[in-house]
Amino acid sequence: MNAAAATDLAARMKALAAEARAAARVLATASSAQKNAALARAAELLLERRAELEAANARDLEAGRAGGLDAPKLDRLRLDEPVLKRLAEGLRQVVALPDPVGVEIGRSTRPNGLLLRQVRCPIGTILIVFESRPNVTVEAGSLCLKSGNACILRGGREALHSNAALAAILRAGLKDAGLPEAAVSVPDTPDRAAVAALLQLDTLIDLAIPRGGEGLIRAVAEAARVPTIKHYKGICHVYVDRAADLELALKLALNSKLQRVSVCNAAETLLVHAEVAERFLPPAAKELLARGCALHAEPKARAILQAAGVGPLAEAGEATFYTEWLDKALSVKVVASLDEAIEHIERFGSRHTETIVTADEAAARAFQLRVDSASIFWNASTRLADGFEYGLGAEIGISTDKLHARGPMGLEALTTYKWLGDGSGQVRG
Amino acid sequence: MNAAAATDLAARMKALAAEARAAARVLATASSAQKNAALARAAELLLERRAELEAANARDLEAGRAGGLDAPKLDRLRLDEPVLKRLAEGLRQVVALPDPVGVEIGRSTRPNGLLLRQVRCPIGTILIVFESRPNVTVEAGSLCLKSGNACILRGGREALHSNAALAAILRAGLKDAGLPEAAVSVPDTPDRAAVAALLQLDTLIDLAIPRGGEGLIRAVAEAARVPTIKHYKGICHVYVDRAADLELALKLALNSKLQRVSVCNAAETLLVHAEVAERFLPPAAKELLARGCALHAEPKARAILQAAGVGPLAEAGEATFYTEWLDKALSVKVVASLDEAIEHIERFGSRHTETIVTADEAAARAFQLRVDSASIFWNASTRLADGFEYGLGAEIGISTDKLHARGPMGLEALTTYKWLGDGSGQVRG
Repeated sequence: MNAAAATDLAARMKALAAEARAAARVLATASSAQKNAALARAAELLLERRAELEAANARDLEAGRAGGLDAPKLDRLRLDEPVLKRLAEGLRQVVALPDPVGVEIGRSTRPNGLLLRQVRCPIGTILIVFESRPNVTVEAGSLCLKSGNACILRGGREALHSNAALAAILRAGLKDAGLPEAAVSVPDTPDRAAVAALLQLDTLIDLAIPRGGEGLIRAVAEAARVPTIKHYKGICHVYVDRAADLELALKLALNSKLQRVSVCNAAETLLVHAEVAERFLPPAAKELLARGCALHAEPKARAILQAAGVGPLAEAGEATFYTEWLDKALSVKVVASLDEAIEHIERFGSRHTETIVTADEAAARAFQLRVDSASIFWNASTRLADGFEYGLGAEIGISTDKLHARGPMGLEALTTYKWLGDGSGQVRG
Repeated sequence: MNAAAATDLAARMKALAAEARAAARVLATASSAQKNAALARAAELLLERRAELEAANARDLEAGRAGGLDAPKLDRLRLDEPVLKRLAEGLRQVVALPDPVGVEIGRSTRPNGLLLRQVRCPIGTILIVFESRPNVTVEAGSLCLKSGNACILRGGREALHSNAALAAILRAGLKDAGLPEAAVSVPDTPDRAAVAALLQLDTLIDLAIPRGGEGLIRAVAEAARVPTIKHYKGICHVYVDRAADLELALKLALNSKLQRVSVCNAAETLLVHAEVAERFLPPAAKELLARGCALHAEPKARAILQAAGVGPLAEAGEATFYTEWLDKALSVKVVASLDEAIEHIERFGSRHTETIVTADEAAARAFQLRVDSASIFWNASTRLADGFEYGLGAEIGISTDKLHARGPMGLEALTTYKWLGDGSGQVRG
């Protein structure tokens, strides 16, 4: 891109963000009824305009096939009637969620008589950067809208036409409800420089949420002047304590690792206390192997498994424990103590989700106190770290950051608050 | 600085931050009693080691005088017995504050029986970058310590020796309480490149809080890869509505502007509804002028004041309304409506604190709903936007950011939370 084109792109992105910001001001004071009307109308339009959506999607599918996308990726890209029905149902679920805006989260009357309240309000304009799945357009867009925020939705280029068509549905819903269409905005170009330009606009955009693989998230976070909330990866641990019920431990290890392997809250590492390793590891490893899970075992675990004739085993070195497998694969390590388990998690973990399996409450409480992760379970699967499981009703993403929101993020995470003070002439000093 | 020196500096800052981070892990699980013991011991040491502190301070004062610091700056730098007594009293007040760590802020039992709790915990390692007042070393250091965080304290070079001596007091308190001294760390050089190096260490430092003038804050925020919480400036507005009690309006305008002029929550702009401008402005302006406050009036306000024979007046152009006077000076504007007042604040404000003076509750509620600032008062002085006035017991800073913390920040703003789940074998799917 030459300098003139770059300047033009930056100017267009600035204009887009300024329009989104103006729309955000209107949305911030819109009633729940009005926001819900926009969402409900969009749910209807998803099916009414099915032909149009499928035509846009066909262009992406065709380009994807021509570009050599594999079958699973093409599948995730597809918008057909069942997918559209699910998206419409998702919109109706967001309508049913309570509106977080206007909720009072603190109140006190100061000694001088000032009534002070903390009241939730929208954050403003939120940039969502995501990979190719077009359903994110509807899910993220609807959550931003419900929480009174304008959003700029930037999906992967493979889903360019599908995303634009879905955003048009949300915009039509906004328009029919008397709300500004610019509250859901989409950049007019798949050029990557558009994202870079948007990420600089910290006076117009209040928050960026990157969603996708670690590479995308890191690129966004490193380029951003706008604040971001994110998680790079989920290296979740299952720690089987010496006081564990070993049957329960196997059940939780299997579910944490294998119930769905491609997600960030799946376990990547199994830590086993040395005192129970010889009893636990051989049967557990057999079961994992039988289900097609590769095992990467460090020397102590390897020795125990080899002595029991369990295999095949892959080796585990230092890099192994930093690996997010996102697949049927698991790192395995024997630890000498609860302390060593905690140290391992501190060193190799991603501060996402860990679980301890134990019958010893003191060990569980020490683990929960000392491990510095967003979610820390006692005798439960790591797979439960999820907005729906937590009762948030929805999930805009998961944060392994420590500021603003940690762990699964629902509608409340898309709000900030104001301090409102009602006085009768109170002054200082 | 040559490349080798820069590499060495970066390595030293990384080592410093790594030590702070290790200390943070210990502090995160320290009991309230232990943290309070460290603070109480530091309060004693401030007076026991007075001679040592005064000697360190004398070096800074001497360098300041030689470098041409003016009398008010030298005064703010001075550590004498009354100042040390006040700092010790401040430490005892922090001891008396409730510990935010471990407080449960959410609890639910999920349909599957999982008991889910959200529990406050420290953020980790916090970098405080501030200008020359050495009292910030004690105040910020004690709040970080109380909330279980390690801190790296980086004051202005004018207070280099004073800050180092005060940090040594906090470290001695930590040591006597059996806590790691590195929980309060100070870079070993006044070189500005040290701050730049620290601000890159996003895997070791969790948060940076810059405190001081806009230049310092902007430099920190723009250089930082570490998340920051900050406010650039406080352009606070007093809006006198058409339904205002004009006597009350004058009282609040005077207090908001003049009770203390050098602070961020002082008013910088007075907006007056056109319907009351002729009655309100002349007597209000006379009173402000009589108290030595310069008035920068836009044409409508100017015309009203000149017709009433009130002066002298300075002119107000567009740039005027972006100015944070921090002095006995006030921008004055007549607005045609509540809408125009809100638009003006949206355009020129800094999202810090605004107040509306009115007897019309509907106008007040509209103002509080539509203005997008951290604190929005009805019939109260902007000077009340303060951690102590809000009952937070302390103030680590004020945020005009929208994420994590907004407005005055107390101990809770120095915490994040964990999700703790107690199960009995719950799995997914």
